[in-house]
Amino acid sequence: VTDGATVLPARQHTIRTQNLGLVLRQIAATPGRSRAQLAQTTGLTRTTISALVDDLIDRGLVAELTPGRGARGRPASPLVLNRSGPAGLGIEINVDYLAAGVVDLTGAIRAHRTVVSDNRALSPRLGLQRATRLATALIAEVGLPIAGVTVALPGLVDADGTLRRAPNLPGWQGVRCAAQLQESLGLPLTVDNEANLAALAQLWHDDGLTDFVLVSGEIGVGAGLVMDGRLFRGVRGMAGEFGHVLIHPDGPPCGCGANGCLEQFAGQEALLRRTGLLDVATLVSRAAAGDGRTQGALTEAGRALGVALADLINTLDIPTVVLGGLYARLGEWLVPAIRAELDRRVISADWAAPTVLISALGADAAVRGAAGVAVAKILDDAVGVGQ
Amino acid sequence: VTDGATVLPARQHTIRTQNLGLVLRQIAATPGRSRAQLAQTTGLTRTTISALVDDLIDRGLVAELTPGRGARGRPASPLVLNRSGPAGLGIEINVDYLAAGVVDLTGAIRAHRTVVSDNRALSPRLGLQRATRLATALIAEVGLPIAGVTVALPGLVDADGTLRRAPNLPGWQGVRCAAQLQESLGLPLTVDNEANLAALAQLWHDDGLTDFVLVSGEIGVGAGLVMDGRLFRGVRGMAGEFGHVLIHPDGPPCGCGANGCLEQFAGQEALLRRTGLLDVATLVSRAAAGDGRTQGALTEAGRALGVALADLINTLDIPTVVLGGLYARLGEWLVPAIRAELDRRVISADWAAPTVLISALGADAAVRGAAGVAVAKILDDAVGVGQ
Repeated sequence: VTDGATVLPARQHTIRTQNLGLVLRQIAATPGRSRAQLAQTTGLTRTTISALVDDLIDRGLVAELTPGRGARGRPASPLVLNRSGPAGLGIEINVDYLAAGVVDLTGAIRAHRTVVSDNRALSPRLGLQRATRLATALIAEVGLPIAGVTVALPGLVDADGTLRRAPNLPGWQGVRCAAQLQESLGLPLTVDNEANLAALAQLWHDDGLTDFVLVSGEIGVGAGLVMDGRLFRGVRGMAGEFGHVLIHPDGPPCGCGANGCLEQFAGQEALLRRTGLLDVATLVSRAAAGDGRTQGALTEAGRALGVALADLINTLDIPTVVLGGLYARLGEWLVPAIRAELDRRVISADWAAPTVLISALGADAAVRGAAGVAVAKILDDAVGVGQ
Repeated sequence: VTDGATVLPARQHTIRTQNLGLVLRQIAATPGRSRAQLAQTTGLTRTTISALVDDLIDRGLVAELTPGRGARGRPASPLVLNRSGPAGLGIEINVDYLAAGVVDLTGAIRAHRTVVSDNRALSPRLGLQRATRLATALIAEVGLPIAGVTVALPGLVDADGTLRRAPNLPGWQGVRCAAQLQESLGLPLTVDNEANLAALAQLWHDDGLTDFVLVSGEIGVGAGLVMDGRLFRGVRGMAGEFGHVLIHPDGPPCGCGANGCLEQFAGQEALLRRTGLLDVATLVSRAAAGDGRTQGALTEAGRALGVALADLINTLDIPTVVLGGLYARLGEWLVPAIRAELDRRVISADWAAPTVLISALGADAAVRGAAGVAVAKILDDAVGVGQ
């Protein structure tokens, strides 16, 4: 950069990009405003706004609805994010199921499908083929242009999208999931830990919930930490391996190589083992019917969760817990035991008791979060963020 | 703000304040530069620099040393932070001792004193009187003008400086330590948790160490979490209550009201109880002499610390541990057991093993951190930060 002539266009490009982002965010935050209203709130001229809006419409990001009546009786066309525009696909590969979901630009989930799949018994090659088929079928069904994909995985994920460590899917460790799915789907793709993505879905779903730990129960137990409205990933992006907090030094061996981990007391398989039941649906119905053995097992699991959460709250001071996944379905029987341990073990509990909430999102939280991340990336890319 | 005439002076004041801060930070970061060199690196005019430097000298913050020879043979007076300028006082009230230290503007500790004091047996009134006497004697001895005080306390501290919860100093709970010491010393004063302050001292001491957990062993066990070069305080400022992580559900009762806490396995009193010894000096000398019972007790304590740290690293992904306080003196015998548990329990250990370091700071880390916080506040206040 040596003279004004070369600097100016670059700066103009930056300003245009910034204004494009500004208008897009305005439309996302307050859908239904007209061009005139946008000019008023942004301070940009009507001509500039119109050029920017036309650009966003051309890119398929924004739609202009049928005009109603404006403030002074002139027709005013409400601008909204385009429900038919580019959408995000979320894929979840978990231990005993595969899932996929599509979220449109407005954040609405437009299609969702889960299939039982014992991925421990499958080679990663076959598992990824199944995931690809599931995703492809969903894309065909929903009929939206898919612009990006995020994949939720039950373990630690490397920066390059390799599933680095997954105690419950040991055969998948070292598999380059991102690269292989990107090739089979032919779409831009990122991967992340499933509890992280479920926590993001929770953050986006609940206004005002900005600091919490989402504890997600499946075969594995994961945590997504959200602080100050942002996902907390730790120094190397590996935070949230909550399932391996020690509950009892003489506890049962765990797939991670250690023993006495939370998963062995509160994971899905531990619950089924302790109740002698074969599936989660029966577990839920037995608990609801007041079966003593089932409720006793859930109380034990709740105590283990409470101990691990007390450690986390004492160490991190993140005093709101959201139960997700399987734990949301079992909340009624888990919460009393969790609360009792928190009361007993959290140092600040006497004057600032932790809050325990049950997620209103279903089992599709991780897929929603994954598709939502893909949508956020579409919007960011469209206005040049991070380019 | 309605017209240019009222805005301008405020903006000029802001610019002057910013420039004052800029010059002060430059002198702090690279002591020994001359006015001419500062003009060069900051882009400010020589006249502006001289006015700012004169202001900083008038305030006692900066000193101009005897001129050496400048680059072109002209005399150049090196500018440094004033070692005789306003200094910060740190006070530590711990379970079984009191300490005080003075740090000058350059960050050097200029005086330090620790006295044994069983504060559990003292009324807070008497304890605070002793702390005041200790501080007053130290201030007289060091002969520097004290501009601010920070007090390190072994427990959770409220925003208003009350010791809210201290399982090892139950008689002090609810005591308004900040208000009482501020009155008796007649100096601006803040309070904070001792492990937090020790972690700050560690951060300032070790260049390049930006992400770590400092585990500080005394009668209590605390943690200070530093991430991305900043102290992590949690949602309500209560992070770091690491001494109450569960180690064994059937473990001994703890002063916090729960049982099986880390402190009951690795705190100073647990170590003395298990070895049958009466003081830490004997513990260290017995371990150094190869006494089996002592080394066995330290291995057990190391295992407990390793388990609690593995939980923390799995949850938070903060893979560098620094052992401080008593643990720094006992590091030789603790580290092998800590490492063994980390290897066994940390999910990412196979390809990214955690690091265990021993703090080079002595038992005065918390006092250094406290006095350092007071110094940082002096420098911030001088240039109007946060006003």
